[in-house]
Amino acid sequence: MSDRNGLALGIDLGGTAVKVGVVNRRGEIVGRGHRATEPEKGVSGVVANMALAVDDALVAAGVSKTDLAGAGVGAPGTCNTAEGVVVSAGNLHWENVPLAPLLSERIGLPVMLDNDANCAALGEQWCGAAHGSNHVLLFTLGTGVGGGLILNGKIYGGFAGWAGELGHMPIVPDGAPCTCGRAGCLETVASATAMAAAARREIEAGRAPLMARIASEQSGHVDARVVITAAQQGDAPAVAILRQVGEYLGLASASLVGALNPELIVVGGGASKGGEHLLEPMRRVISERAMPGPASVVRVVAATLGNDAGLIGAASLVWR
Amino acid sequence: MSDRNGLALGIDLGGTAVKVGVVNRRGEIVGRGHRATEPEKGVSGVVANMALAVDDALVAAGVSKTDLAGAGVGAPGTCNTAEGVVVSAGNLHWENVPLAPLLSERIGLPVMLDNDANCAALGEQWCGAAHGSNHVLLFTLGTGVGGGLILNGKIYGGFAGWAGELGHMPIVPDGAPCTCGRAGCLETVASATAMAAAARREIEAGRAPLMARIASEQSGHVDARVVITAAQQGDAPAVAILRQVGEYLGLASASLVGALNPELIVVGGGASKGGEHLLEPMRRVISERAMPGPASVVRVVAATLGNDAGLIGAASLVWR
Repeated sequence: MSDRNGLALGIDLGGTAVKVGVVNRRGEIVGRGHRATEPEKGVSGVVANMALAVDDALVAAGVSKTDLAGAGVGAPGTCNTAEGVVVSAGNLHWENVPLAPLLSERIGLPVMLDNDANCAALGEQWCGAAHGSNHVLLFTLGTGVGGGLILNGKIYGGFAGWAGELGHMPIVPDGAPCTCGRAGCLETVASATAMAAAARREIEAGRAPLMARIASEQSGHVDARVVITAAQQGDAPAVAILRQVGEYLGLASASLVGALNPELIVVGGGASKGGEHLLEPMRRVISERAMPGPASVVRVVAATLGNDAGLIGAASLVWR
Repeated sequence: MSDRNGLALGIDLGGTAVKVGVVNRRGEIVGRGHRATEPEKGVSGVVANMALAVDDALVAAGVSKTDLAGAGVGAPGTCNTAEGVVVSAGNLHWENVPLAPLLSERIGLPVMLDNDANCAALGEQWCGAAHGSNHVLLFTLGTGVGGGLILNGKIYGGFAGWAGELGHMPIVPDGAPCTCGRAGCLETVASATAMAAAARREIEAGRAPLMARIASEQSGHVDARVVITAAQQGDAPAVAILRQVGEYLGLASASLVGALNPELIVVGGGASKGGEHLLEPMRRVISERAMPGPASVVRVVAATLGNDAGLIGAASLVWR
């Protein structure tokens, strides 16, 4: 391994922000950059912002491009990883954007691309909760519910790059409409968005005074953090919301435990800070509903890399 | 390729019968053998019956063991393929039986082992409905509902060999008890057993005169064939039973279409003779409930190798 291969850029492209890290071979971030994504400026505007965030990270790390093996990008959508194309990314309003070639031309480095949840799974496998595991399901609880599958040690993309879309498993009969155009998807009941909506209903019904008070301390804004903070104080309505989310994640997992026989299920994303309030009901439903053999071996754990999982996993694409 | 590698034995080990075929490199069966399994005689008795069925097939094909590259066995349970061990097979009351070494010693040939539904998937991929497809889900509708996953062109076994157990996806809330110890599994509503039970209910309630007549022609025995035969004549109660089974298969598939992004879903096993009465409702539910992108690319087809899929796929294990 030459020195040149000792560092890579990890780029987490979100709908709001681009986060960049210079990452070493131990998965440590040695310099960071951060810019607004500004999807309204179009593809070239977003690529320019990505390049600026890269420059910021290089300065912060005190290194130059010649020290880097390349860059990996985690994008919020379906990707053709072989050609580096974002096939579809709803939050960015992108269809068939050749992001890797465009960014590579801009920054003068090889660029690899994968879905953001896949990158988070790779990050957790490399140096997080899934270290050493080769059969892993990852749920990321954020605005939606993302998913990533590591099968036989590698990301599984399926026939056309959609595999791992665990957020769109139909889980609620006659459920609420989903952004994907269907109804009753896991995402409609287990995302941070769904948790916030449930909290809002409880607050408006006057059944959740503690959550109301916590929300009032952040200008009345009700988000998943309100639920998690209240649950950490033992608040029953908040605990009940996390329990319900955990039960839905458990039901989705129960189907996948028999189908895929994972060694490990990792729950990440901001809302995973619900911790055991979320994981315990999830484990219980898996043990009640999944096939006994595979249910007896699977472990369910929280992600450990937090918001850096995607960035670190994206960097790892360079060396895979 | 030497002549010696031009033929292999495929062995389909069922709870009732052992079926053996001498299979050539084109997937054609050039000789067959058949014996009762007699699980009540214990492992050594079953292995002896397998060896007798092998001898029958060799005689039928007019070849000797020296013409064979080896034997592949499809077993009705969870298998450790690397060591050739049947980890668990409920129908045989087996736990941790080193079947491949035992049979290899008995017949003097190398023996490979995999789960029977996995073998059926391999058979369909080699020279049946899934020929040329590398991302395939197979459902086999029989006494239970078996499943096999071909991912990236290979059987996916998961962490401990259980992957592909699609029959135990929890699909009915508050559903009926399943043989696995859980309740509401796909198998409880989509197996040949479930179809026969539904037909029995309709007949007993006096709502299914055609199915009653067909059953009376086989000594009153109501099985899935009664339903399929009646449906082929347009009988509404029989068509409704197949539609319900198709809808449940569609719901299970809808979860897997987003999670695994298959190219093809193949429905095999005896009850798959329900054909379009089964497949059309299955496709409809997938298109209504699965994530639109992956739902738009998946095809749902009937298996084409019939009861020989497992045997042919087992033979292919020898050359893989």
